[in-house]
Amino acid sequence: MLAVVRPDQPRDPAAEAVGDLLGALANGELTAFTRLAADARLAPTLRDEVALAGYAARRFRDFRRLSDHLGELGLDPEAAMGPFVGPLDAFHDHTQPADFLEGLVKAYVGDGIVRDFYREVADLLDGERERGTRALLLEVLAEPRGAAEYVVARVREAVTAAPSVAGRLALWARRLVGEALSQTQQAAAERDALIDLVSERGDLADLARLLSRVTDAHGDRMHALGLSG
Amino acid sequence: MLAVVRPDQPRDPAAEAVGDLLGALANGELTAFTRLAADARLAPTLRDEVALAGYAARRFRDFRRLSDHLGELGLDPEAAMGPFVGPLDAFHDHTQPADFLEGLVKAYVGDGIVRDFYREVADLLDGERERGTRALLLEVLAEPRGAAEYVVARVREAVTAAPSVAGRLALWARRLVGEALSQTQQAAAERDALIDLVSERGDLADLARLLSRVTDAHGDRMHALGLSG
Repeated sequence: MLAVVRPDQPRDPAAEAVGDLLGALANGELTAFTRLAADARLAPTLRDEVALAGYAARRFRDFRRLSDHLGELGLDPEAAMGPFVGPLDAFHDHTQPADFLEGLVKAYVGDGIVRDFYREVADLLDGERERGTRALLLEVLAEPRGAAEYVVARVREAVTAAPSVAGRLALWARRLVGEALSQTQQAAAERDALIDLVSERGDLADLARLLSRVTDAHGDRMHALGLSG
Repeated sequence: MLAVVRPDQPRDPAAEAVGDLLGALANGELTAFTRLAADARLAPTLRDEVALAGYAARRFRDFRRLSDHLGELGLDPEAAMGPFVGPLDAFHDHTQPADFLEGLVKAYVGDGIVRDFYREVADLLDGERERGTRALLLEVLAEPRGAAEYVVARVREAVTAAPSVAGRLALWARRLVGEALSQTQQAAAERDALIDLVSERGDLADLARLLSRVTDAHGDRMHALGLSG
């Protein structure tokens, strides 16, 4: 496999950060695709299966766009994704849904946090060279509205039918967030370029605001699902 | 769930056959999507994973087109797919690939037989009302060339590297075909309309030729893979 930056080239931290960002997100989409598609089989009805399968299929389309963009930048998509395979597999291995509702909440809550986080980081790509990447990222990370509405309605329906489900799903969502944070930390610890991007282009207060915006949006989603407090 | 043909409507065998044909194929595509996407996780490299995931993603696109077409005909997609869920799940449960190569052969050989068979049946839709369905079916069933070339090259490479693999994969392909035939028979036995379509629009000799063409095409694929004799 080609290294993202060839050893005979001078280090270019901004380019490395872009490769890391695209590689992490591309592998996240590919992994979400195979995992969500498999989770669709937990669906109690064909309608539910189609809904979650559609969510998964969209992930593959997004993966392709990110992978193609890596190629256009002269980067090898597999090399860019490589460092993130372990953490992402670990995240999914630790968060295998026990039933369809857990699968839905994972698709919605997990995906939501990832989108919010990457959108914040994409916003930091303000260089001239990074304009195309930033535009693509913001487009890919835009919420697929219809899918979200379906998940919200479906989870609320299940909670109304059996109120005890709410506590279990709220706990499940908390576990998803914990695992996501822990695996993100692990991945980031080995990728200086990404950390540098965030710390060089913003200050500590920016980072705090970033995390608080991501946390707020997560709270909003939990509230929409009827799973908060 | 709505019945495909409402009880207050007169029976219309040709319309029922079209509903069955589209329902069986739509459910086949949806099921192939979730199963192949899950099989992609068996891939030894990211490149392999992307290839099989791409194969799976295409299945979902085809499912959507068939499902939309059912809706346009005034049929309920879930009701049309319903009768085929059991046999298709049974087929996949009995043919879970043990490794990535088995997954690839299943995608290529299994999918090939299904395509050939349905294309033959679609050819029998010669009525004026059925023109749109026939055109859609023939388009959806056209071989995705790139994917086939990838599978052929990948299996040949594996057989060259370890010739003993050939015998195992040939046996595996035979099992796939046996299971496909057995589940098709079971599904067809309960769907008079499909049987009627084939037997009314062709004679026994046609049916024999249909089966022999499907068998020949399967032989060609096994040969292409380097798995014949």
